[in-house]
Amino acid sequence: MSKTISYLGLAGSNSYIAAQKYFKKYSLVSCNSFSSIVSKVIRGETNLGILPLENSLTGSIYETYDLLLTGNLSIVGEIFLNINHHLLVKKIFLENKLDILDLTHCYSHPEVFKQCKSFFHQYPHIKTILTEDTTRAAIKLKEDKAIATCAIGTKLGASLYHLQTLKKNIAESPYNFTRFVVVSKKGQKKGNKVSLIFSVEHVPGSLLKTLEPYPRYGLNLTKIESRPVFGKPWEYIFFVDFELKDKKDLLPKILSQMKEHVNFLKILGLYEKGEIYES
Amino acid sequence: MSKTISYLGLAGSNSYIAAQKYFKKYSLVSCNSFSSIVSKVIRGETNLGILPLENSLTGSIYETYDLLLTGNLSIVGEIFLNINHHLLVKKIFLENKLDILDLTHCYSHPEVFKQCKSFFHQYPHIKTILTEDTTRAAIKLKEDKAIATCAIGTKLGASLYHLQTLKKNIAESPYNFTRFVVVSKKGQKKGNKVSLIFSVEHVPGSLLKTLEPYPRYGLNLTKIESRPVFGKPWEYIFFVDFELKDKKDLLPKILSQMKEHVNFLKILGLYEKGEIYES
Repeated sequence: MSKTISYLGLAGSNSYIAAQKYFKKYSLVSCNSFSSIVSKVIRGETNLGILPLENSLTGSIYETYDLLLTGNLSIVGEIFLNINHHLLVKKIFLENKLDILDLTHCYSHPEVFKQCKSFFHQYPHIKTILTEDTTRAAIKLKEDKAIATCAIGTKLGASLYHLQTLKKNIAESPYNFTRFVVVSKKGQKKGNKVSLIFSVEHVPGSLLKTLEPYPRYGLNLTKIESRPVFGKPWEYIFFVDFELKDKKDLLPKILSQMKEHVNFLKILGLYEKGEIYES
Repeated sequence: MSKTISYLGLAGSNSYIAAQKYFKKYSLVSCNSFSSIVSKVIRGETNLGILPLENSLTGSIYETYDLLLTGNLSIVGEIFLNINHHLLVKKIFLENKLDILDLTHCYSHPEVFKQCKSFFHQYPHIKTILTEDTTRAAIKLKEDKAIATCAIGTKLGASLYHLQTLKKNIAESPYNFTRFVVVSKKGQKKGNKVSLIFSVEHVPGSLLKTLEPYPRYGLNLTKIESRPVFGKPWEYIFFVDFELKDKKDLLPKILSQMKEHVNFLKILGLYEKGEIYES
């Protein structure tokens, strides 16, 4: 039996693409929420899960951090996906030799429309129709009986739903990266990158004392982010990532030194630094 | 002539509510993008602008940070808005003595539906219709000829569009705060809170050296966040906020000490710490 990985959305979603690029031999299991991905992994219904952790345009995804904080899971891998928004049409659109000026409607997620604002500014005759995600946009386009309609989606979405790319990369910014993490019930003992969550007392210097081991051992943080704990006005939690590189023996030392200054600390995982794939 | 403040969206949007709570005597000017708010303030078409900077569920709003980084503007105020999602119906719905079980359709933004997932899980017969924002959801509901339809929106949205609240606070988390900043062409010389953007060399310890003045002077950071600069693999920019409290004389000292270790540093503003309002 092949190994399984649970992901968010339908076939063709960004999570699906990331999972497929990373795990060529896994069977992908569709889920409709982050928490159902986590439950599936915890209950052993899938071997692994894939969760988006942050995006270059919209920042950290707190829902994922909350699930990593409370769930009994570890990060065991990382994937960066560069998301390219393409203008997709049906085959019949091209067969009829229509072009952008003939388009009447476009399906996509409101956030995607925002990211492609200049395009729609240039072609104001195209009406936008909102969908829950870009996969549903592709499906709606496929099912739409009108010929001169389009959707915004990915290359893989196009091929899965037998759509054609009319215009590539219509988003304003070419830097739309999502960082995904692969989660498992069992953590790894090997890896060159570490993710941590911790909290410190709200007294001057407490955060800096906690971070002191990093420069001392020549390690640099690749991410640091504070998040206020709502309902607890002076409490913050911190998300920190750093690259261990080849200094794996340092990990227990760093953690024990950090623990002298934190209220709590959780290792989210030790894993290999991820690569960038195109969507 | 009364003073003016530009805000995002239509009357009833969260930015509108925040502006109205904070500036009782200003005239509000609707804009359709963050950048048009910034342009209006820079060109002197409005005295001030209001921009969302971060949200407790979705994190920092990078588009605002980018505009603060590049635009010639200063933060001069701060407002926290606790966003409550209510289920709104038309008066005729109540007059006909209908209840939740009679509802057929609900208008709102996809993100809002996600935040109210349990409610729709409990009432799966209600179909969701996506809109660009909650204000447009209220308008669509008002214009809908069917009686048994609803929208998710705010108290103010309800009163502006003559809608009634059928059920209060249907979101999962009561902690949905957006932090807004008020921007002006001219910075202030007074205030108890400071926001900065800076970048440091990617060498171990550079960030910590930059932050050393804070514990030394007994000041604590209320926010720290790293953001990778895409396209420049080892460059990060940092967003930092701290409360000066009554130690206003410290500001030039701290800045000059920080400047010894940064590549660049921009003061986004000096302003009074904001209060929390209910939406």
